[in-house]
Amino acid sequence: MSLLVVGSIALDSIKTPQASVNNIVGGSATYFSLSASKFTKVRLVAVVGRDFPKKYINLLETNGIDTEGLIRDNGETFRWQGEYGKDFSDAKTIATHLNVFANFRPKIPKSYQNTRLIFLANIDPQLQLQVLEQVKKPKLIACDTMNFWIESKRSTLLKLLKSVDAFLLNESEARLLTGEANLILAGKAISRFGPEIVLIKKGENGALLFKGSKIFTAPAYTLEEVVDPTGAGDTFAGGFMGYLAAAKRINDLTFRQAVIYGNIMATFAVESFGVNRLQKASGQEIKKRINYYRQLTKF
Amino acid sequence: MSLLVVGSIALDSIKTPQASVNNIVGGSATYFSLSASKFTKVRLVAVVGRDFPKKYINLLETNGIDTEGLIRDNGETFRWQGEYGKDFSDAKTIATHLNVFANFRPKIPKSYQNTRLIFLANIDPQLQLQVLEQVKKPKLIACDTMNFWIESKRSTLLKLLKSVDAFLLNESEARLLTGEANLILAGKAISRFGPEIVLIKKGENGALLFKGSKIFTAPAYTLEEVVDPTGAGDTFAGGFMGYLAAAKRINDLTFRQAVIYGNIMATFAVESFGVNRLQKASGQEIKKRINYYRQLTKF
Repeated sequence: MSLLVVGSIALDSIKTPQASVNNIVGGSATYFSLSASKFTKVRLVAVVGRDFPKKYINLLETNGIDTEGLIRDNGETFRWQGEYGKDFSDAKTIATHLNVFANFRPKIPKSYQNTRLIFLANIDPQLQLQVLEQVKKPKLIACDTMNFWIESKRSTLLKLLKSVDAFLLNESEARLLTGEANLILAGKAISRFGPEIVLIKKGENGALLFKGSKIFTAPAYTLEEVVDPTGAGDTFAGGFMGYLAAAKRINDLTFRQAVIYGNIMATFAVESFGVNRLQKASGQEIKKRINYYRQLTKF
Repeated sequence: MSLLVVGSIALDSIKTPQASVNNIVGGSATYFSLSASKFTKVRLVAVVGRDFPKKYINLLETNGIDTEGLIRDNGETFRWQGEYGKDFSDAKTIATHLNVFANFRPKIPKSYQNTRLIFLANIDPQLQLQVLEQVKKPKLIACDTMNFWIESKRSTLLKLLKSVDAFLLNESEARLLTGEANLILAGKAISRFGPEIVLIKKGENGALLFKGSKIFTAPAYTLEEVVDPTGAGDTFAGGFMGYLAAAKRINDLTFRQAVIYGNIMATFAVESFGVNRLQKASGQEIKKRINYYRQLTKF
């Protein structure tokens, strides 16, 4: 099935205790689409500036990502500068320059309007709602968000949640949104906001999937080395949605398997800076990790 | 198979944001033996004072726990006073009165010396070593420890780890012992200290089992309400060792299943203050949670 992502493309400058990089391609739509491209053709809606390197557009296109919806605007590309401490928990943002992203008003090309699966990556929930006005009866709509929107645009976000089928967020966002310390109670509370599927990502502790009254709990892959956790959540979402798009049918079991694929794709994302490792992940490598994951969790 | 535990019995006073209790039975050996008693007969070595309520000895004995090794010493019973914050992370110790526990020198009764499975609950590693001198060729020796011994008796602890088959500890202890933030690397480093089995308990995030070069990762049960987390780790250990003691054979799969049973037993421990809920857990209730856990983790 067809898959559309609307999100950000950025040039990231990242510092970790081991190394630092400048102006490498990042952004939610980049990680998402490269991850999902391992499973299906992805349609991309995003904006970049005139300074955006051609090599990165080539990277997307050689991975079969449809860039008809990628706007090249006047001005500079969205830039994010961040830093991680020794334990790679939350990134510390040093600087954010929205640049062309400040005026991003997602426009869905006509050829995208009948897309079956939609992923609204983390942008202003008002813009996420505007995307939904431009698409025709998709089979599944999923969205992401961040603490900034939970705090500053709560009512718009809650309105959006009534219109989506699946909501992906991390554990601190789930706690912030609900005021619940217990993640099981938080997930159930979020389900009551509307989405049939709630997926809480817990980083090195795996993920929790709420589907109606049923819960699926998946531990993380046993990753020994993290180089750069930037984009792990979007890569997870890309594996999740990409797997669903490629699945013959979508049911309880497919959703669970999609969580595992999301989980596994994220392991590639964090093994290098940016998308270096992720873009190279072969179908055979993905399968190998899935098989190893089955061994890890069998009892 | 026979199972022996050497550890503490305490009278705990616990405060949580919801309620508080005074002088209820606690201690590592209490939680461990009540948990393991659901699977097998447990032999207990511990010390209590003259003030220790008879009803608690009855509680142990009516659960089939052999108290021949329980010393009633002059003086008062070990007392611990602790407090939990809203998110039930680490307990804040308000007061510790070792009392009779200060002079505890575990003496293994003759009738216990051929016990097949030994659990050395968290006490001074020097005393844990002394227990091993008193038993005859057990099939499996497991031990626990705490941050205090890791920091103050590291070399004795490392000596102990060369003599045990299994080492159970929580994630902060694993990081403290190895200096590794990554738990997979920490688990592997601990394996190199000696134990064939390393079990890292991660609380609401499940557990990691290292057995030789193989890893098993198990998420936690989806618990919605925590009343008092005291004793969860010892209850986990009791379920783990109790299940192994009752198993027909001990192999890779049995160890993994034992982790799940430990996991499940801990859910009963935290649902009430002290051992109230744990002692009442029926075989049918345990089985029901095991079955539910299988549903939670199936993919």
